[in-house]
Amino acid sequence: MKLTALLIAIEVGGTVAFAMSGLIEAMRKRMDVVGVFSVAFVSAFGGGTVRDLLLDRRPLFWVEHEAYLWLVLAMVITAPWWLRAALKDAGARLMEWADAFGLGLFAISGTSIALGAGMSPGVSVLMGATTAIVGGVARDVLCNEVPKVYQDHRPYALCAVAGSMVFLGLGGLGLGSELASLAGIAVATGSRLLAVAFDWQLPGWRLPQK
Amino acid sequence: MKLTALLIAIEVGGTVAFAMSGLIEAMRKRMDVVGVFSVAFVSAFGGGTVRDLLLDRRPLFWVEHEAYLWLVLAMVITAPWWLRAALKDAGARLMEWADAFGLGLFAISGTSIALGAGMSPGVSVLMGATTAIVGGVARDVLCNEVPKVYQDHRPYALCAVAGSMVFLGLGGLGLGSELASLAGIAVATGSRLLAVAFDWQLPGWRLPQK
Amino acid sequence: MKLTALLIAIEVGGTVAFAMSGLIEAMRKRMDVVGVFSVAFVSAFGGGTVRDLLLDRRPLFWVEHEAYLWLVLAMVITAPWWLRAALKDAGARLMEWADAFGLGLFAISGTSIALGAGMSPGVSVLMGATTAIVGGVARDVLCNEVPKVYQDHRPYALCAVAGSMVFLGLGGLGLGSELASLAGIAVATGSRLLAVAFDWQLPGWRLPQK
Repeated sequence: MKLTALLIAIEVGGTVAFAMSGLIEAMRKRMDVVGVFSVAFVSAFGGGTVRDLLLDRRPLFWVEHEAYLWLVLAMVITAPWWLRAALKDAGARLMEWADAFGLGLFAISGTSIALGAGMSPGVSVLMGATTAIVGGVARDVLCNEVPKVYQDHRPYALCAVAGSMVFLGLGGLGLGSELASLAGIAVATGSRLLAVAFDWQLPGWRLPQK
Repeated sequence: MKLTALLIAIEVGGTVAFAMSGLIEAMRKRMDVVGVFSVAFVSAFGGGTVRDLLLDRRPLFWVEHEAYLWLVLAMVITAPWWLRAALKDAGARLMEWADAFGLGLFAISGTSIALGAGMSPGVSVLMGATTAIVGGVARDVLCNEVPKVYQDHRPYALCAVAGSMVFLGLGGLGLGSELASLAGIAVATGSRLLAVAFDWQLPGWRLPQK
Repeated sequence: MKLTALLIAIEVGGTVAFAMSGLIEAMRKRMDVVGVFSVAFVSAFGGGTVRDLLLDRRPLFWVEHEAYLWLVLAMVITAPWWLRAALKDAGARLMEWADAFGLGLFAISGTSIALGAGMSPGVSVLMGATTAIVGGVARDVLCNEVPKVYQDHRPYALCAVAGSMVFLGLGGLGLGSELASLAGIAVATGSRLLAVAFDWQLPGWRLPQK
């Protein structure tokens, strides 16, 4: 009961954060209002929808909780008013924080849902990462760019994996699922914020020169 | 019974129109015959397939009515003969009309199918728009372009939404579903043709300058 | 029983070949380790996953046989060590052979699985081609390129179709499914290797000049 409430809070937070990233990216590409809505929608719901398709879960979460749909629609329609204020003094930073929270929130909710659907721990962690990154990948594909998450060279998906493993590990040790969720989110979001702040770099994976 | 016949007529018409848009776009990109078939196929069936995946409907409509498959295959193989004639004096206009009819036809069939699957009116309208625009979005992604429908700045998806709302509204008022379908298609297709003829513009959704 | 073993061997071989193509392409784009893993994973499992989604089969094959996941992960992590040696004297040729084997292997397994799911011969051949080419198409979309298979102008998907038709034809003539599978793979892979060796060209499908 309380877990369900926590999971819903997790998905609302992640949805707003990811919709905002799609909204801003679509505006950068000078899309019209339909493009902005579509890209915001896909950014916010793409990861969870692919997760649900792969797990064969119905109804999809944005069908079951239709309010998410109207929330994103309202964000897009009102964007010209609130976005200027939101970007004024801390644009890039705001986006990084929203993105880091969405990452942690979606990774843990995806892992938790996959586990509940009977997946193994390995597949559950992969489903968590899928939930967290597929929305952003779809956003970049629709904007005709190579997915940023694949070329960032700072850990992003790996933070999601780390958070999911902490969540699974603490759950396995008998911790309640709410505390385990919060710890997992803290690890995923926190490690991403640290990675951005200190500019951690992943090792390059270059093709050897012949 | 008659509704089913109408829905099939709707899907045949939309399929031909959308396959043609994919076929022409793939030829512009100098794809080979496999690329032309694939892009025509995805343009024609992409929207309906995504709709069916999201609604968990099986068999997919192009599996149930396999003749659609052979129709698109025949269009691609015979394209070198009929396409020159079709493009000769009215190429751009032909495409715009075919596209506008596909838009109206797919929007209403998608909305109707989603409603029949127990979706709410809001989700049904979204499914109608999905059926209408996802084929074109997938076509543009495969051709490595930003989806035209997102940058057109003339109403396109909004025409689909308007038609679907008219269809739902008239159905709610007790009109028979065939008449409601025809009215919805007329609104969606007609408003698109007017938008093109008079160059209606959507308001821009620009990112504010910092 | 033995057919199952054969199908598994088919999928392991195809998985390694296609994962390698994604891995090399992602490295060319200078992606980080997460991008390399994601693109390798999508190249290897994309075709089979789309096939399973369209056929509504669960569990997905990489969920059922989780070892595939760890295989691709191990390939990516160890790539810096083995890839240099593998590319040293026969890079392009190695890729072409691996790709041709993946093509034949995936086409026949996809056709066979679709047939087992009750699909018609026409849809089964299409599902075989889908299994064989969708991974590569998704790889190129994620790398922000027009899918190579659509612009290659040498037969590729058509080799998959030819192999699948031989498989279906020999099966229909009463040949055991193992022999029919091997013959189909030989036709698909062999015709692709011949197409590359002798530079066979598909007829162009150009848009007529107005």
